[in-house]
Amino acid sequence: MTSCSISPDPRFDLVLERIVDVPRDLVWAAWTTPEHLKKWFTPAPWKTVHCEVDLRPGGIFHFLMESPEGQQFPHTACYLDVIPGECLIWCTALAPGYRPLSAAAGGNPFLFTAIITLESLGERTKYTATVLHSDEEACRKHDEMGFHQGWGAALDQMVALMS
Amino acid sequence: MTSCSISPDPRFDLVLERIVDVPRDLVWAAWTTPEHLKKWFTPAPWKTVHCEVDLRPGGIFHFLMESPEGQQFPHTACYLDVIPGECLIWCTALAPGYRPLSAAAGGNPFLFTAIITLESLGERTKYTATVLHSDEEACRKHDEMGFHQGWGAALDQMVALMS
Repeated sequence: MTSCSISPDPRFDLVLERIVDVPRDLVWAAWTTPEHLKKWFTPAPWKTVHCEVDLRPGGIFHFLMESPEGQQFPHTACYLDVIPGECLIWCTALAPGYRPLSAAAGGNPFLFTAIITLESLGERTKYTATVLHSDEEACRKHDEMGFHQGWGAALDQMVALMS
Repeated sequence: MTSCSISPDPRFDLVLERIVDVPRDLVWAAWTTPEHLKKWFTPAPWKTVHCEVDLRPGGIFHFLMESPEGQQFPHTACYLDVIPGECLIWCTALAPGYRPLSAAAGGNPFLFTAIITLESLGERTKYTATVLHSDEEACRKHDEMGFHQGWGAALDQMVALMS
């Protein structure tokens, strides 16, 4: 069992699963290349204006989101597992180099772990984004913040970009 | 660069480095076998009365400590990287399966990431335990709690056990 074969818990986790008309290697490139991520990762009219990717366990995943009013929101996360073309895991509980991030230290108070898995279906790809939370309350909040709409709109942008 | 070659930051991190008279494979066994861990991991008169090890990235590292008065303190952590005989990384910010652990959800409020690296020196081993914290305050607290004394006493117990 690799660390990607995680069974989500419906009480704690949110899952977006879709078959997209984009080959697997292009979906992987979209998720792991800053120039691509800047174009699709944040649903419009918000933007990703800066992005850093150090694609290895312990490496940084940083993105700077900008609201339509020009306010900027930095996010720093840490990759946990990277299986090229198959699975990408990153979390907001750790900074690069696996350093813990505490809210007290200016860390992200919104804790989740994202597991992106890709499966080839000919020229199409089965895309699954599983987002793990610490508890039901955090999961419900993320759901109410519009997880499915937000991650779905971003995926639409990815498909439009990579098609 | 593997994820084990992390340069500690003296403001945030604590390091215990020692050369021990135990071959590297035995130090590795001591750190990764519940039956060994139960005998050395907690400085006496405290005890580790239960221990679980699922030795893979995302796997559980659980231990139940017991005070001399019989009060029990469970700790759950998650392995991040496992390079047999060389390097072991685990953190308290994540539960098994990389699920974030929040203090609100009963998680460990004491966040750190431990990096154990071993280097063979003939029949001896250079042992380095690097403990990463989120900020200076957390590092200072861990230092004042007696990090060097505690981790050093545990290491003495390990050396006595494995010699």
